[in-house]
Amino acid sequence: MPGITIGDTVPNLEVETTQGRFKLHDYFADSWTILFSHPGDFTPVCTTELGMMAAYADEFSKRGVKLLGLSCDDIASHNEWIKDVEAYSGGHKVKYPIIADPNREIIKQLNMVDPDEKGPNGQQLPSRALHIVGPNKMVKLSFLYPATTGRNMDEVLRVVDSLQKAAKHKVATPVNWKPNEKVVISPSVNNDQAKEMFPQGFETTDLPSKKGYLRFTQV
Amino acid sequence: MPGITIGDTVPNLEVETTQGRFKLHDYFADSWTILFSHPGDFTPVCTTELGMMAAYADEFSKRGVKLLGLSCDDIASHNEWIKDVEAYSGGHKVKYPIIADPNREIIKQLNMVDPDEKGPNGQQLPSRALHIVGPNKMVKLSFLYPATTGRNMDEVLRVVDSLQKAAKHKVATPVNWKPNEKVVISPSVNNDQAKEMFPQGFETTDLPSKKGYLRFTQV
Repeated sequence: MPGITIGDTVPNLEVETTQGRFKLHDYFADSWTILFSHPGDFTPVCTTELGMMAAYADEFSKRGVKLLGLSCDDIASHNEWIKDVEAYSGGHKVKYPIIADPNREIIKQLNMVDPDEKGPNGQQLPSRALHIVGPNKMVKLSFLYPATTGRNMDEVLRVVDSLQKAAKHKVATPVNWKPNEKVVISPSVNNDQAKEMFPQGFETTDLPSKKGYLRFTQV
Repeated sequence: MPGITIGDTVPNLEVETTQGRFKLHDYFADSWTILFSHPGDFTPVCTTELGMMAAYADEFSKRGVKLLGLSCDDIASHNEWIKDVEAYSGGHKVKYPIIADPNREIIKQLNMVDPDEKGPNGQQLPSRALHIVGPNKMVKLSFLYPATTGRNMDEVLRVVDSLQKAAKHKVATPVNWKPNEKVVISPSVNNDQAKEMFPQGFETTDLPSKKGYLRFTQV
């Protein structure tokens, strides 16, 4: 039973964090949130990841996205380790809260367990899971990476831009899309509707099937 | 019940594909495999994705990685649609098989359902799920993207390189790592062992905790 997946509402757990106790839904409020776990404090990849998250925090903030970290270490450990993270990241401050889950209850419910890693006493450890939670408190997109593979914060930023564009317009983003590149119009929009919705125009790609479903526009 | 997650063995389902019927484990054999779903044939993002997968196929093949697509359309539809995909991708041939799952059984078992998308008769549709399956037939890493967000094949290639490096050496890849950049030495390796394992040398980053856990090397 792997816990939540995309489309599921994040359970409204009460959590203890480096910035106090709160319920997850109160923290999310009606924002987008990136909820991400790391295997352990004072470990190498995690230090590079949490430092990079601190360095990218302004980019996420500009997009109205909150950050929330999690590992199974306790609050005292998190607070000591943050000094290392901030030193490594060239002084970017860790302004986001980090959950402490020493009982391994939260990582199970949130599908954040790494099957291949164990603590010194055989305890479960978190994977590098990262859920992007929408304003409706449901998981919109997930990365499930193992301890050995550090995440790519540029890819995280790219998919946030994609999700937010699709939430605003009837569009989707094609493979390898980057912000400012063209998007495609949703198949649920017919050509007459598309002319109204996208007065800037759109181009239909000519394909062997002649079905006219691949329509690019700029939003 | 979202189906499989990282660490789970992919069930040995018998599948019907554009290249015949087979059991998943026979296809995987002892290779790495990328098992990926798309919401539907003759839809815009999917056409760009499967075309790009065809364009990147040689890169995956060089790394010994097999490809296996999946949607809920039938084989006749897949075969017609492949003509569009190949035309769009500038002539790159779709050489990998695509599973047909009209009964929606496989997508449920493989955690590939998109909660927000429905077919014309209210049927479930696949998400843009992508599981990287290791030679032991277990899921090592997963991307779970919704229909509106096309995947990034450069990120898929990057994590394949990371997973394969970590399978070969006692290392992990830091945040935003790219091939040929330095990797970090696993915390399970002490400094004496590291000197033997990495005769090319390694550098320990000086951090406030003085714990010496962040050690970079080149492999």
